[in-house]
Amino acid sequence: MFPSSVVLDSMIKDWLLEDMGRGDKTTQGLLLLDSEGKAQWLMKEDGVIAGLPIAARVFRLLDEQVAFTPMVEEGNFYKSGTKIATIEGKKSALLTGERVALNLAMSLSGIATETRKYVDQIADLPTQFVDTRKTTPGLRILEKYATQVGGGVNHRLGLDDAVMIKDNHIQAAGGIGKAISLIRENIPYTLSIEVETSNLEEVKEALVNQADIIMLDNMSLEMMSQAVGIIREKDQRVKIEASGNITLERIRAVAETRVDYISSSAPITRSYWLDLSMRMVD
Amino acid sequence: MFPSSVVLDSMIKDWLLEDMGRGDKTTQGLLLLDSEGKAQWLMKEDGVIAGLPIAARVFRLLDEQVAFTPMVEEGNFYKSGTKIATIEGKKSALLTGERVALNLAMSLSGIATETRKYVDQIADLPTQFVDTRKTTPGLRILEKYATQVGGGVNHRLGLDDAVMIKDNHIQAAGGIGKAISLIRENIPYTLSIEVETSNLEEVKEALVNQADIIMLDNMSLEMMSQAVGIIREKDQRVKIEASGNITLERIRAVAETRVDYISSSAPITRSYWLDLSMRMVD
Amino acid sequence: MFPSSVVLDSMIKDWLLEDMGRGDKTTQGLLLLDSEGKAQWLMKEDGVIAGLPIAARVFRLLDEQVAFTPMVEEGNFYKSGTKIATIEGKKSALLTGERVALNLAMSLSGIATETRKYVDQIADLPTQFVDTRKTTPGLRILEKYATQVGGGVNHRLGLDDAVMIKDNHIQAAGGIGKAISLIRENIPYTLSIEVETSNLEEVKEALVNQADIIMLDNMSLEMMSQAVGIIREKDQRVKIEASGNITLERIRAVAETRVDYISSSAPITRSYWLDLSMRMVD
Amino acid sequence: MFPSSVVLDSMIKDWLLEDMGRGDKTTQGLLLLDSEGKAQWLMKEDGVIAGLPIAARVFRLLDEQVAFTPMVEEGNFYKSGTKIATIEGKKSALLTGERVALNLAMSLSGIATETRKYVDQIADLPTQFVDTRKTTPGLRILEKYATQVGGGVNHRLGLDDAVMIKDNHIQAAGGIGKAISLIRENIPYTLSIEVETSNLEEVKEALVNQADIIMLDNMSLEMMSQAVGIIREKDQRVKIEASGNITLERIRAVAETRVDYISSSAPITRSYWLDLSMRMVD
Amino acid sequence: MFPSSVVLDSMIKDWLLEDMGRGDKTTQGLLLLDSEGKAQWLMKEDGVIAGLPIAARVFRLLDEQVAFTPMVEEGNFYKSGTKIATIEGKKSALLTGERVALNLAMSLSGIATETRKYVDQIADLPTQFVDTRKTTPGLRILEKYATQVGGGVNHRLGLDDAVMIKDNHIQAAGGIGKAISLIRENIPYTLSIEVETSNLEEVKEALVNQADIIMLDNMSLEMMSQAVGIIREKDQRVKIEASGNITLERIRAVAETRVDYISSSAPITRSYWLDLSMRMVD
Amino acid sequence: MFPSSVVLDSMIKDWLLEDMGRGDKTTQGLLLLDSEGKAQWLMKEDGVIAGLPIAARVFRLLDEQVAFTPMVEEGNFYKSGTKIATIEGKKSALLTGERVALNLAMSLSGIATETRKYVDQIADLPTQFVDTRKTTPGLRILEKYATQVGGGVNHRLGLDDAVMIKDNHIQAAGGIGKAISLIRENIPYTLSIEVETSNLEEVKEALVNQADIIMLDNMSLEMMSQAVGIIREKDQRVKIEASGNITLERIRAVAETRVDYISSSAPITRSYWLDLSMRMVD
Repeated sequence: MFPSSVVLDSMIKDWLLEDMGRGDKTTQGLLLLDSEGKAQWLMKEDGVIAGLPIAARVFRLLDEQVAFTPMVEEGNFYKSGTKIATIEGKKSALLTGERVALNLAMSLSGIATETRKYVDQIADLPTQFVDTRKTTPGLRILEKYATQVGGGVNHRLGLDDAVMIKDNHIQAAGGIGKAISLIRENIPYTLSIEVETSNLEEVKEALVNQADIIMLDNMSLEMMSQAVGIIREKDQRVKIEASGNITLERIRAVAETRVDYISSSAPITRSYWLDLSMRMVD
Repeated sequence: MFPSSVVLDSMIKDWLLEDMGRGDKTTQGLLLLDSEGKAQWLMKEDGVIAGLPIAARVFRLLDEQVAFTPMVEEGNFYKSGTKIATIEGKKSALLTGERVALNLAMSLSGIATETRKYVDQIADLPTQFVDTRKTTPGLRILEKYATQVGGGVNHRLGLDDAVMIKDNHIQAAGGIGKAISLIRENIPYTLSIEVETSNLEEVKEALVNQADIIMLDNMSLEMMSQAVGIIREKDQRVKIEASGNITLERIRAVAETRVDYISSSAPITRSYWLDLSMRMVD
Repeated sequence: MFPSSVVLDSMIKDWLLEDMGRGDKTTQGLLLLDSEGKAQWLMKEDGVIAGLPIAARVFRLLDEQVAFTPMVEEGNFYKSGTKIATIEGKKSALLTGERVALNLAMSLSGIATETRKYVDQIADLPTQFVDTRKTTPGLRILEKYATQVGGGVNHRLGLDDAVMIKDNHIQAAGGIGKAISLIRENIPYTLSIEVETSNLEEVKEALVNQADIIMLDNMSLEMMSQAVGIIREKDQRVKIEASGNITLERIRAVAETRVDYISSSAPITRSYWLDLSMRMVD
Repeated sequence: MFPSSVVLDSMIKDWLLEDMGRGDKTTQGLLLLDSEGKAQWLMKEDGVIAGLPIAARVFRLLDEQVAFTPMVEEGNFYKSGTKIATIEGKKSALLTGERVALNLAMSLSGIATETRKYVDQIADLPTQFVDTRKTTPGLRILEKYATQVGGGVNHRLGLDDAVMIKDNHIQAAGGIGKAISLIRENIPYTLSIEVETSNLEEVKEALVNQADIIMLDNMSLEMMSQAVGIIREKDQRVKIEASGNITLERIRAVAETRVDYISSSAPITRSYWLDLSMRMVD
Repeated sequence: MFPSSVVLDSMIKDWLLEDMGRGDKTTQGLLLLDSEGKAQWLMKEDGVIAGLPIAARVFRLLDEQVAFTPMVEEGNFYKSGTKIATIEGKKSALLTGERVALNLAMSLSGIATETRKYVDQIADLPTQFVDTRKTTPGLRILEKYATQVGGGVNHRLGLDDAVMIKDNHIQAAGGIGKAISLIRENIPYTLSIEVETSNLEEVKEALVNQADIIMLDNMSLEMMSQAVGIIREKDQRVKIEASGNITLERIRAVAETRVDYISSSAPITRSYWLDLSMRMVD
Repeated sequence: MFPSSVVLDSMIKDWLLEDMGRGDKTTQGLLLLDSEGKAQWLMKEDGVIAGLPIAARVFRLLDEQVAFTPMVEEGNFYKSGTKIATIEGKKSALLTGERVALNLAMSLSGIATETRKYVDQIADLPTQFVDTRKTTPGLRILEKYATQVGGGVNHRLGLDDAVMIKDNHIQAAGGIGKAISLIRENIPYTLSIEVETSNLEEVKEALVNQADIIMLDNMSLEMMSQAVGIIREKDQRVKIEASGNITLERIRAVAETRVDYISSSAPITRSYWLDLSMRMVD
């Protein structure tokens, strides 16, 4: 979901300031001031486009009158060479904003492109592909947007919108049941509780204690199938998530165990930026 | 160069807030409060470590008494399985800070690891490997730190600490000479001016107009050699930078043209995070 | 749950600046500087105490060496006249911080005191008392903390940690089923979806479409009982919340319909501050 | 006095972010985007309206094109059921901003309504009703605005725009005279100095030392009358403020002692929010 | 009055960031890291010292362990060559903080030095020397502190802690009386109202309408004497301020008209920085 | 170079808040609200005008519809009495913004006026006049803009856009050569390195070690001439800067030694504000 400008604009302003520091000396030195120009964005690699509305805000913050016109659909796949946007406005805004806008669109399109590869593997199955909290500090909301654009579904956005009980937490509380009941007492009742399990014993314990989501972490395909069977027999509503060692080669087999969700950080932590470039055309 | 805490701490605080939102419900729900614990960081892949002092600050902001003890040297290469740090402090701080700290160290170590590969190709030659402004928005200062840790040298940090005249600027000014003299008049005299060139004519024009740095952009190896010859004959001090299409395979041949610097965004835009993990040991 | 200092301290600093403006002219004019003093906090009304750890942070931000010693338990009920804390530190910090610290503790204790009244009515029943998003702008995290201290349970903390589908949303989407399925597609899968219903038809529709939480809004006791029956027959896990016109007189009857949760904004919007005062004792 | 947008807008933005967190998942999930709608605000209780211009800014920050049209006068008393405003703009802005805007208008209208009750008791007398620094942290400027809207007069806005010498200060300085002269030397000469007194001796001492304002704190009606007599005989310009134990029942008798001002925190600390609601009408 | 650290520290941090940008490349390049050093501050001109406690905070923010030891008294006059402070701590903190700390102390000492010259002219008279709102944007609180250190008294600190009615306001309201009564109705009753007058008619009108302070603006000495006579005959408590064309030559004659205050912006707008320097001694 | 609004607007907002605090009580008290007015700015002293575009932004932030019309050219010299701008907009914006806008324009015009005096002394020589880092904390970017408007050239803007090696650094490193090579290794290669020298030995050492800029600090005219000769014989590109004891009387003689740049902080640290005033004309 595209972030509200209330959330987004101050982040973009910080990123512009990071690059501009005390001012773009090249552009300022040329005294371009208010002369108008036109630029075009091009793809230099095949991939899925994400982030054009965000790039548009970058230029808008530098020139309120700028016109950023997307020529492609956010979330679609295009071939290298495709013209993806034109930007008309003050030359100084186009040149000063170029790098920040491209850095954003390139990294987000890279994530969307990689996400699409995973999603395509399981497109005909009911299982959905999910992201994680392994996101670049400062960019979570945008990287999770790119995941959606690429066809994935978001997992929790942070430490406060869902509970995830891992082995460290279980150990600290003295068991899954104790951890769940202690947490349940203290948190907003609207929050889901997910429990990370690594064997069938833990799966059963999470099930008995009414976890809302059970994560099957780093299990073999066989164990995963068994876990899904055990859970579904007892409860139709608990959600099942598989995690750990999810590769393009293996994802389909995991989905075929009938888990509801498969999570992986790979589209964010193991992807390349999609190569895009800008050229002045006027 | 490691950033000052005056610069760094407010960024880390923002990143913690991005993840915590209104609070870490899992840890808060467990009422861990002030109970003390100990955690260990491990490598799950071979690579060059970068970012431990930054990770240390993450935990410090959550618990002033935390002890983060690195067990390896920043910038060295280690094998998967190596214990790289121990952290002792409040369990709630260890668990709440884990993800942000790891996300930083993993992405920075990934950059340092990839940088090292390029640097190693030309380690016995005088040419140095340089980064670019293609950096993740919000992380430039840290990603440029990771480049250094990996053995690279930094190019300019932003739009205000050096001038880079590209074709768009040249076209706007009406020629390299005009662009340089116009900019030179208007900027701090202490700033270097770099000119991007794509053929020998432009190289000569940049040379005549006393550019401080001449970038040879996307030239063939042969043209680069010629350009270096032309420049060195006339001026021993101007710096020469090669850019464009720099791969691990090609970098050594480029360095052998005797350029001073080779720049590439690949360690930042085309690298994976280095896999690290944390486990509670007490 | 008590908020992390990462979240809390900058809010308190803003509140101190709101009161101090360009400086506390009375205290500054007296040139109190670093002279040490001791103060005591007293109750001037019976009630439940909440907010002492927050008041402690107020003084700490003005004097790093201050000692704030609570003499009562957060969340307990005490009689007027009880000494609830002593504070030792720089006189200037005690006098400058007094008003902000008391304003916080008085308003939060007022909320906890009022919450306790509702909670006491249903203490022997399984139903829990829940707050709402009708909170004072800027104080939500603290007012929700006060609710917990008073014995209540938190509803969602904001617009991003759970979904609440009201009639306006239903109308915009064209039905409960369409609204749920559209939203389910677009949000983090970990989020709960609550649907507001005002009659049995809507209850059934929400149930069929697998709402996680069904709110019975402004229903008669009889309709509520029927709704609970319909829901429980079909689904043991869906949570049932009653809302609207919850008074101290009526809450017990509502709980006896066997809803899981009863929500009301009254402890926040219809309560008085608890009267507390500070006096210098040294 | 209505605060400048320079002061107000960043506060409102913070309050929106408090509620929205990482985004309004319900509205975003419905993909409402830019579809237009119309809403109406209604009173569900009798009272004095305050805060409509502030509510207007809330919606404006979410949608620059929103039209917020008040249908009543700020500061007037209306009956339950009155339509007080219509809002036209993007549905997503109306639904996302609803709670924050209502929370502000409800709490401020509650203050204005309660203030009016006190003011009405003494409307035919020259004495004026004044607020205090017991205000909700973060909301002082708005709560003091609500006091004015309700017919009250503001006391000092913070610790820096007037001096208030209380017993703790007097004790620290060694007497009223010493405290006044010490403070007078060190503060902007334009600031007024108020002295809190609890008996006639102190009143005389404050008078002799040329306090600008003398507060009669928690005195009996008889002592207050005597104090007013003593002061007026000697000085026509010193202002006299009565404080402590001001109730709706007692305020008229206090005013009849001919004090200039009567201060009370009750309209802020002992009032209910005025019940208002929003409904979509299109 | 020295500002609270709650107010001061974030300003100093901003000023450090203004100078450091992305980091002090000279000091960072030398890898000084944590090596300890000692520096001394010297006067290179005669003057009154102001700002040492502020300089101390600059270094403290860069190195929590730094020891800044003043060797002179804030507000005293010293001769060129005097050692005014020693600073011991990390060399990197001393060198990075040097310029910001000196810039502050030099400009504030310049103001204190110039203020002292005016104050000395009227030291034996009851009239006091007062500053204005002509202060450097961002530095008001410190420049007003320097005025006090130099022996002056502060006028209002901003637009909110006193009212100043100038001819533009009088014209807008339709007369002095109308302006005063309109403003009096709408502002905190604790605020003083000053009226700017330029002839005896206006003085009388301000007097009749009970201005708290009457400013005699740009009057001849003779007219000022008459004005003082008219005012004092009628009211002993109204304060009289002379303003406009106050020079070192003329100030004594103005004071002899028996005005209470003489205001001038000259020590801030027409003074030089006092030359101070730092040298490393270890 | 005029700063980008991305950089400038938040500074201006801070300065407005510094002056307004909780609101302009005089203007608010008059209930001027949206009534329109017109004001004129006048010079009350001869001088060079700088800062009108910045003043325009001050009023714009208070009233989006304000029209600020400059009647003179930024950087030109005008006589006392010249009308330099008209401002049309809400009276409340004109009166509330007056002081901040004038404070900025007066201090910047003072700097431009003083700079012009130095520049005029050497206008027919190739040497250029340069500023320093002795700037008012918080105002560097604007004071450096005023230097340019006055005809000067900027030196580095902060600690991060050029390296300056002073004796303290040399001593810490153990010699000029060691300092240069150590720093060169660690900083962005695009940064210039300047070395401060005080005798011919140091000049030679800086020259041998390929400093980009050699500063001749506090040298006699004779020694400067010799230094220029030594440097120019060996290297045509190294830049030579003279510094220390630069007065209006001496600057021409210094320029005649054929140094490239002469730096002085005097236009900033030893100048007066240029007297400007505003009057309402409608």
